[in-house]
Amino acid sequence: MDTSSTSQEKKPSCITLTTDFGLMDGYVAAIKGVILARAPEVTIVDLCHAVPPQDIAQAAYLLHETAFYFPVGSIHVVVVDPGVGSSREIILLVSQGHSFLAPDNGVVSLLITPGCRAFRVARPDLYLSPLSHTFHGRDIFAPLAAHLARGHAPESMGQAVATADLAPLHLPHPHVDPIRGTIRGCVIRRDHFGNLITNITLADLGQLQTERAAITLAIGPHRLRNWHDTYSQVAQGEPLLLINSAGLVEIAVNRGDAANYLNSRIYAPVLLSVC
Amino acid sequence: MDTSSTSQEKKPSCITLTTDFGLMDGYVAAIKGVILARAPEVTIVDLCHAVPPQDIAQAAYLLHETAFYFPVGSIHVVVVDPGVGSSREIILLVSQGHSFLAPDNGVVSLLITPGCRAFRVARPDLYLSPLSHTFHGRDIFAPLAAHLARGHAPESMGQAVATADLAPLHLPHPHVDPIRGTIRGCVIRRDHFGNLITNITLADLGQLQTERAAITLAIGPHRLRNWHDTYSQVAQGEPLLLINSAGLVEIAVNRGDAANYLNSRIYAPVLLSVC
Amino acid sequence: MDTSSTSQEKKPSCITLTTDFGLMDGYVAAIKGVILARAPEVTIVDLCHAVPPQDIAQAAYLLHETAFYFPVGSIHVVVVDPGVGSSREIILLVSQGHSFLAPDNGVVSLLITPGCRAFRVARPDLYLSPLSHTFHGRDIFAPLAAHLARGHAPESMGQAVATADLAPLHLPHPHVDPIRGTIRGCVIRRDHFGNLITNITLADLGQLQTERAAITLAIGPHRLRNWHDTYSQVAQGEPLLLINSAGLVEIAVNRGDAANYLNSRIYAPVLLSVC
Repeated sequence: MDTSSTSQEKKPSCITLTTDFGLMDGYVAAIKGVILARAPEVTIVDLCHAVPPQDIAQAAYLLHETAFYFPVGSIHVVVVDPGVGSSREIILLVSQGHSFLAPDNGVVSLLITPGCRAFRVARPDLYLSPLSHTFHGRDIFAPLAAHLARGHAPESMGQAVATADLAPLHLPHPHVDPIRGTIRGCVIRRDHFGNLITNITLADLGQLQTERAAITLAIGPHRLRNWHDTYSQVAQGEPLLLINSAGLVEIAVNRGDAANYLNSRIYAPVLLSVC
Repeated sequence: MDTSSTSQEKKPSCITLTTDFGLMDGYVAAIKGVILARAPEVTIVDLCHAVPPQDIAQAAYLLHETAFYFPVGSIHVVVVDPGVGSSREIILLVSQGHSFLAPDNGVVSLLITPGCRAFRVARPDLYLSPLSHTFHGRDIFAPLAAHLARGHAPESMGQAVATADLAPLHLPHPHVDPIRGTIRGCVIRRDHFGNLITNITLADLGQLQTERAAITLAIGPHRLRNWHDTYSQVAQGEPLLLINSAGLVEIAVNRGDAANYLNSRIYAPVLLSVC
Repeated sequence: MDTSSTSQEKKPSCITLTTDFGLMDGYVAAIKGVILARAPEVTIVDLCHAVPPQDIAQAAYLLHETAFYFPVGSIHVVVVDPGVGSSREIILLVSQGHSFLAPDNGVVSLLITPGCRAFRVARPDLYLSPLSHTFHGRDIFAPLAAHLARGHAPESMGQAVATADLAPLHLPHPHVDPIRGTIRGCVIRRDHFGNLITNITLADLGQLQTERAAITLAIGPHRLRNWHDTYSQVAQGEPLLLINSAGLVEIAVNRGDAANYLNSRIYAPVLLSVC
């Protein structure tokens, strides 16, 4: 992020918002209002407001999958914050030229990359007054994001902190056993179409050292083996396996809903085996 | 609002939209299209489109809670309009430097402040042609908002009118009885998290002249007394009482849904009493 | 669209997005991120993301009803794409000064107007790399739209093609029988309010050469005859017929839900007859 120039001289910054607020209230709009009142030239984009309430892991997955497609210099505000009003701190993570403002609850874990920097934010002078105990998105995160968007350096936000000292997030990791030829993983996301996205990567598959067609996926009582590149390669209503647009093993049904079809759901265990 | 300069010379205006249109149709987009065709530099923000159909009171609460966080000079368009196509008029309310364009149905009642000004809008020359009977958001409100955003004075929109002459809105008000030590109010909003927000303010509580810990809240068969500052001060799944970010008494459940927990809903009566 | 000037010299372009992606994932945000990384000055507007999954006809209706309200020069990106990753091509349709980027699956059928031009898009040099098989919205449509928004001519996107050679879309058309005095049509859309919108136009009605009051609409076991201009002309909860804001016959209930009231749904047949 170019922090030497003022907002007048550069392209408008981009701020994304990721929350569990939904869209039925005015909460998201209040955050946008506070930002625009302080940084009127900024472009605000909804990354997602449908994170299940207090679901830090789902927010972490969504950010990891989406944030880096935004312009370098973007500021990503994350308000999935079950500890709002408690002693949990707020952090700024600068990773690959992107800034992430979030509660220190592990939600940025998947964004930590070599060379990234983290800061514990301590700028109460920027907070709204009066300051509420329950809506830090509006009263704290929004003015902090506007401040960054106006070109202030990350160092101005607070003390640097080692990423190892940030709150951890315990996510399920796949277990690859090349000897037995198995991978144990699980479903980590169900999308709008009912696609079931697992935590098993293309690199994990590679460790089995066999062609994909020889790998069977078991989920519940179901056994799937028809790997394809895309949905329309099977008949309408038929299930298939593919590597999705985030590089993960996905279970889908062409023009259908895999979660319903398989009667499965998030965090369901998945076993891949060579046979 | 600075009405002397043109849109070329000033920061882009901000227009917010509050409707009961939902997001499944193209209605909101049509409004945005009409605005952008006339005022391309404007920043349009969704305040809320999930107002329950024709629910003027819910729209009034949302606007009151949210609108003034936007930049001074913002234009707030409100299309919750059960009387669309009838003889109901359109008004412009200018309050605290913000402009509100709305049907004259009471939806702006909570935004009336000392020194505010109101106008009956009469600018059919600005309307879309042909003019529909059922979609004034697109055909009337959108071009009016774009006209304001381009820097035209509120006086150019129509005759001034006393706010006392605007259509009233009958909202439930809490009744405080300092002698008996009671406040009778009700739930006025249920948010995305299931939090139940009442119409009882911090100032109402103050009239009981006792510490908060001595006040019990009754809702249905439930009695609550554990006042806290924020959700995480009780165990997960436990209910609590707090003053929310809008200064209102709120019933919540930490990481849970108070409306489900209490089997309660909007407009449920609430009794606070000292005991 | 003015293609001779650069993005620096002209008003920001407007890009609209129409998808069946919903808002629970980060898919829409990823598209916006890719666009903003390449054309930061552009204004992106959600036309609709609630198209039923893979429902090309519903997307076609929404675009037809909404797109031309946006500024001339707008770029409309349509990603309702059951054939993603297959051999289906991508087209650019330039109609009435608007550009439509869409899969060649018929979704732009209703936007074809006299004098419009179509192109088969072949610019793999613009695609994201690596290129996924399942998310062309992000990897192909987004960079193409950004390229257009930066002022490149439609001719630069690929070979011109006759609109007659585009993939067709089979939509139900009303059948008017002036001799018998009947029109057979159907419901084509159910909106957020439960209004039932038919495919019968004001022009179709005109062919019956009688006053509207003499025309009865039959849907399921129901017979309706009370034509009005707007909802509030009947009592609350009463059904009515009107010509809606898109010029189509609509069945509504004042402050109610016609689809529920009539226990009807999309594609239900409708018979109008003079009696």
